[in-house]
Amino acid sequence: MRAVTFQAPGEVRVEDVAEPELLEPTDAIVRIQASGVCGSDLHIYHGRVKIEPGFTIGHEYVGTVTAIGEEVRSVAVGDRVLGCFQSACGHCFFCERGLFHKCDSSRTFGHGAALGSLQGTQAEQALVPSADLVLRKVPDGMSDEVALFAGDVMGTGYHAAAESGLHPGDTAAVLGLGPVGLCAVQAAFAMGAAHVIAVDTVPERLAMAESFGAEPVHLTEQDPRAAARAATEGRGVDACIDAVGDPRALELAIRLTRKCGTVQAIGVYAERCEVHMGLFWIKAMNMRSGHANVIGHVDRVLELMASGRLDPGPLVTHHMGLEQAPEAYALYDRREALKIVLQP
Amino acid sequence: MRAVTFQAPGEVRVEDVAEPELLEPTDAIVRIQASGVCGSDLHIYHGRVKIEPGFTIGHEYVGTVTAIGEEVRSVAVGDRVLGCFQSACGHCFFCERGLFHKCDSSRTFGHGAALGSLQGTQAEQALVPSADLVLRKVPDGMSDEVALFAGDVMGTGYHAAAESGLHPGDTAAVLGLGPVGLCAVQAAFAMGAAHVIAVDTVPERLAMAESFGAEPVHLTEQDPRAAARAATEGRGVDACIDAVGDPRALELAIRLTRKCGTVQAIGVYAERCEVHMGLFWIKAMNMRSGHANVIGHVDRVLELMASGRLDPGPLVTHHMGLEQAPEAYALYDRREALKIVLQP
Amino acid sequence: MRAVTFQAPGEVRVEDVAEPELLEPTDAIVRIQASGVCGSDLHIYHGRVKIEPGFTIGHEYVGTVTAIGEEVRSVAVGDRVLGCFQSACGHCFFCERGLFHKCDSSRTFGHGAALGSLQGTQAEQALVPSADLVLRKVPDGMSDEVALFAGDVMGTGYHAAAESGLHPGDTAAVLGLGPVGLCAVQAAFAMGAAHVIAVDTVPERLAMAESFGAEPVHLTEQDPRAAARAATEGRGVDACIDAVGDPRALELAIRLTRKCGTVQAIGVYAERCEVHMGLFWIKAMNMRSGHANVIGHVDRVLELMASGRLDPGPLVTHHMGLEQAPEAYALYDRREALKIVLQP
Amino acid sequence: MRAVTFQAPGEVRVEDVAEPELLEPTDAIVRIQASGVCGSDLHIYHGRVKIEPGFTIGHEYVGTVTAIGEEVRSVAVGDRVLGCFQSACGHCFFCERGLFHKCDSSRTFGHGAALGSLQGTQAEQALVPSADLVLRKVPDGMSDEVALFAGDVMGTGYHAAAESGLHPGDTAAVLGLGPVGLCAVQAAFAMGAAHVIAVDTVPERLAMAESFGAEPVHLTEQDPRAAARAATEGRGVDACIDAVGDPRALELAIRLTRKCGTVQAIGVYAERCEVHMGLFWIKAMNMRSGHANVIGHVDRVLELMASGRLDPGPLVTHHMGLEQAPEAYALYDRREALKIVLQP
Repeated sequence: MRAVTFQAPGEVRVEDVAEPELLEPTDAIVRIQASGVCGSDLHIYHGRVKIEPGFTIGHEYVGTVTAIGEEVRSVAVGDRVLGCFQSACGHCFFCERGLFHKCDSSRTFGHGAALGSLQGTQAEQALVPSADLVLRKVPDGMSDEVALFAGDVMGTGYHAAAESGLHPGDTAAVLGLGPVGLCAVQAAFAMGAAHVIAVDTVPERLAMAESFGAEPVHLTEQDPRAAARAATEGRGVDACIDAVGDPRALELAIRLTRKCGTVQAIGVYAERCEVHMGLFWIKAMNMRSGHANVIGHVDRVLELMASGRLDPGPLVTHHMGLEQAPEAYALYDRREALKIVLQP
Repeated sequence: MRAVTFQAPGEVRVEDVAEPELLEPTDAIVRIQASGVCGSDLHIYHGRVKIEPGFTIGHEYVGTVTAIGEEVRSVAVGDRVLGCFQSACGHCFFCERGLFHKCDSSRTFGHGAALGSLQGTQAEQALVPSADLVLRKVPDGMSDEVALFAGDVMGTGYHAAAESGLHPGDTAAVLGLGPVGLCAVQAAFAMGAAHVIAVDTVPERLAMAESFGAEPVHLTEQDPRAAARAATEGRGVDACIDAVGDPRALELAIRLTRKCGTVQAIGVYAERCEVHMGLFWIKAMNMRSGHANVIGHVDRVLELMASGRLDPGPLVTHHMGLEQAPEAYALYDRREALKIVLQP
Repeated sequence: MRAVTFQAPGEVRVEDVAEPELLEPTDAIVRIQASGVCGSDLHIYHGRVKIEPGFTIGHEYVGTVTAIGEEVRSVAVGDRVLGCFQSACGHCFFCERGLFHKCDSSRTFGHGAALGSLQGTQAEQALVPSADLVLRKVPDGMSDEVALFAGDVMGTGYHAAAESGLHPGDTAAVLGLGPVGLCAVQAAFAMGAAHVIAVDTVPERLAMAESFGAEPVHLTEQDPRAAARAATEGRGVDACIDAVGDPRALELAIRLTRKCGTVQAIGVYAERCEVHMGLFWIKAMNMRSGHANVIGHVDRVLELMASGRLDPGPLVTHHMGLEQAPEAYALYDRREALKIVLQP
Repeated sequence: MRAVTFQAPGEVRVEDVAEPELLEPTDAIVRIQASGVCGSDLHIYHGRVKIEPGFTIGHEYVGTVTAIGEEVRSVAVGDRVLGCFQSACGHCFFCERGLFHKCDSSRTFGHGAALGSLQGTQAEQALVPSADLVLRKVPDGMSDEVALFAGDVMGTGYHAAAESGLHPGDTAAVLGLGPVGLCAVQAAFAMGAAHVIAVDTVPERLAMAESFGAEPVHLTEQDPRAAARAATEGRGVDACIDAVGDPRALELAIRLTRKCGTVQAIGVYAERCEVHMGLFWIKAMNMRSGHANVIGHVDRVLELMASGRLDPGPLVTHHMGLEQAPEAYALYDRREALKIVLQP
């Protein structure tokens, strides 16, 4: 079958790879109808996340179940499904506490040996382990391109807002309006934010956030701190979602947030950096971090998407064939797309 | 000044009463611009809640501060304010835990000696104790008739939904579509309900709930249990708000709700009644009860109303003069109105 | 192999039954070293819970793993283990939310076809489904008779206290000092109760509660309401655990508990009954119910037992051989024992 | 009256100052019977926290009420009381949410103009604002020197543990065994920690933590990370309380804590510092920070102290007269004392 494989930094290739086969009684095989290109794929593309040349990449996907192991209960052959970007065992210390994102034997699609040697989903087919936890049926009437957000980007936006301490009626800020930030804007409103301040430097992204109901604030041409104060009688926002992952974003998040508020650092941090702990301490703040618990949230995300209360549709800027993957990655790398959907 | 007074069951009268005076350094006096008639007023009107003849009734109000005691900090003379229906001391066991609705020395407007001898707000002026906790400035651009919901009915709808265990993406049911039930429908959506099943027998109320996004279900002509199952793959709703206060409503709530779900019995219960504890136990359910913590929620309710995410405006069916109060009560008693606003 | 079987109300028999065999890749087989007789067994013995004659009963157990299916990861052949009283699938709606006790395909040991046709553990061996979730290794140094409490009675006491809204420094009451109530007394203290009022009519049980640190109050010879008021400056207890399951206990629980407090109705309710909803409403209370989420709590219960902070040891009043089961049931039925441990 | 005043870095003096007078109707005056010397006092003594020369210092105190304003309800003249180290208004945004420690108009005793110009309590008398929130009656039978911990150090230990995400049965680590760390060890156990790893370099402090039930681990002579792994099957502790306030402590805390665990940075941070955000992110951790919400916790702390479940008594190493304050500060500065109690 055809699949998008990593070759070297800056180089992906569509080539023939072996078809997947069921290995465990909890596995399923999915024939892929749509797969997204994600910011995480770009980390691989740039060589920052190292994987083996020839490994199939991609981890956002919608498709049809073509085979299931004997222990699979929640999906059947023929079901149209979407999948989460990682697997979970369902019975380790973390899974038993619902912390599926930190499952001790989790495997992530398309991230090479370091994350479990699970071939990616930018391919004609994919092997899906622990299918009962990873797969969900696509609600009737939901398009492929919307559905695939539930298992990654919108699941991340939902997580960011749900675990930010936000109460209905609160004011939030979102820093960084890439796909995750934009989904977080929607999710914050869906959970009852009365006001969301959306900060970025790209006019199109600010405009899209505004179309979702947020107050757009240009990072450098406007004053995010003044905006936060104006919206909150001077207190600062109740919760700030840092969807950037950069020390300057974290500093701004700490400054924008009120006393006893929460900084949700959903953006990726990979190293040590300077943090204004003095300010964090004197304001008695909270910080949460890490990637999203998508399996834990996917049912609710799907319900909100099915009801139209979350709608990632506007983020899909490009539809391309699987064979065009090299072009898609180049285009995405130039930040000319928000979400590219690849169709085999 | 003129005020609406209770005289006898079925009889209210507008008469001259003494003007209020500041008694404590934490008091304020408000010149009333609008006051609502509420279902609780009807309990007094019917004689079920007993108060002294001649006592001024009413507890929903918007107006202008005309005097403040020396300890009042958060409002000033001239401020346009709305008020909560009860006061709280701010420092008893319950207030320290944020449970203002169960303050040990709380007083409720317009409910006679039993609830603190605090004259009501269906009058030209009102004395407001613990003004820092009870009053809030009306946000710019918000009408009187919308603002007065924050201190009672919408505060109650918010409380019902906020303390129902509902997560964003869940399905809720609301039983009873009087003003509180209708506000609860809005609040459930504002907090992220993906789906709300709204149950009543009055077509106009079902239609209004539908206009708020809910699925209307006629209690007797349709099948609420089938609707709950259909919306949840057979599980039952995640949370059910009983805005009726009747054993049959409670039984239905327990039946509609899924295992480990929550019944929020916001509707008034005053006596012993039969409860299906066997079903409640086998489904491992939760129940919450009591009137709303309006002071605890009022800031967030106002923010959601100011942003338009909560909008009680459609519930206002009648505007009448204060002098028309006898007519207003008779009309409300005939269930011909959802919310009547009295203007002095 | 030998096993205790239900025959008819009031009659259990030790007889030869078929040895268990692995059926699913997630199964394990355990050679039983100790099994407890529980209050739930008595419901079967009395015929109130109906099961098939000849069915093996019992659901508390400690033993050694003798075989595992190919998917079992957390235990190995030769491990000394304890088990929970029910199984869970790990991936249904409820399991994904950590609500293992309400798993859609849960099976309970020794409760006949109605609860999943899973043969009981008062036997020489037992088949254990979903072994990764159900079994735990016994910590070094913990006796069999202590360990078997983790999977049922102490797990229930922990659940009762953990889900009662109790904060460290609060005052609790426990109604009914059978094994669950006594374990709840210990658990309430382990979680930070400053004061526990323990109510029963049996002097030995009151004395044991007192030895755990509680204030013993005789239900009829003393005044539980006065004791609750005295301990809380007149407010009532913060949380009341009803370990009885009787309308009179529920009424007392509602009366003993303060405004906004919680009644945890862990005692079994099987039917409709009269509840003082008027008092429940005016006090704005919470109620939780249902049997315990033992799988969800078992790790923490074991840690507390291993550290000595929970110690069910004093509850073990009798050790008997498996062949003495008929005598054990008769003795337990006469309320002459708290916990009988059967050893094959 | 006599009072301990700050003069210059390294110099405190006992001198005559004006007696306090009631200024507001919510004030009380307390005749001090015992006042503690705290680590925060040392920051002033060292000149790191700048206050006006001649300002009375101290903020831990027990005494007798000698006068109250007309609005004070919860204490009366003659009551033996303890006080919290800061005041709160009871009605600002933060107080309404129970976040008394971040009250917009809070004042801290003995910290000069920067924190509200409220004279300290190392004196014969003290003026106490917002007395209903700040003061509590000392339970019968509790000594002065124990009681004064409730309003500061033990309140801080309680806060640290209560807001660390710890569940009963979990394992905690406490870094830094000064008075706050030692109280946090006790509080963690009181809330159900099954195991507490206590890290410091001072043998006496390690020994005291061990006497409270903790596993003492010498920071440099032993291996805290190995201890954390050994106690948790390799996962790391569920919660780590950093009672040091130093980047190296924070780094260690992040390393010791398991995935999705919490670092509670109760130790004081005053500046920017390097934080291992990469590790924090990949482990999906939580961090909480800031000084304690003592007013919010004081009732429960007192109950736990009254029941003996918290007992700061062993921390009191010195009793000295108020006139010996210069000697007391010098001694404390040399780390020769854990808690010095000054008695006028």
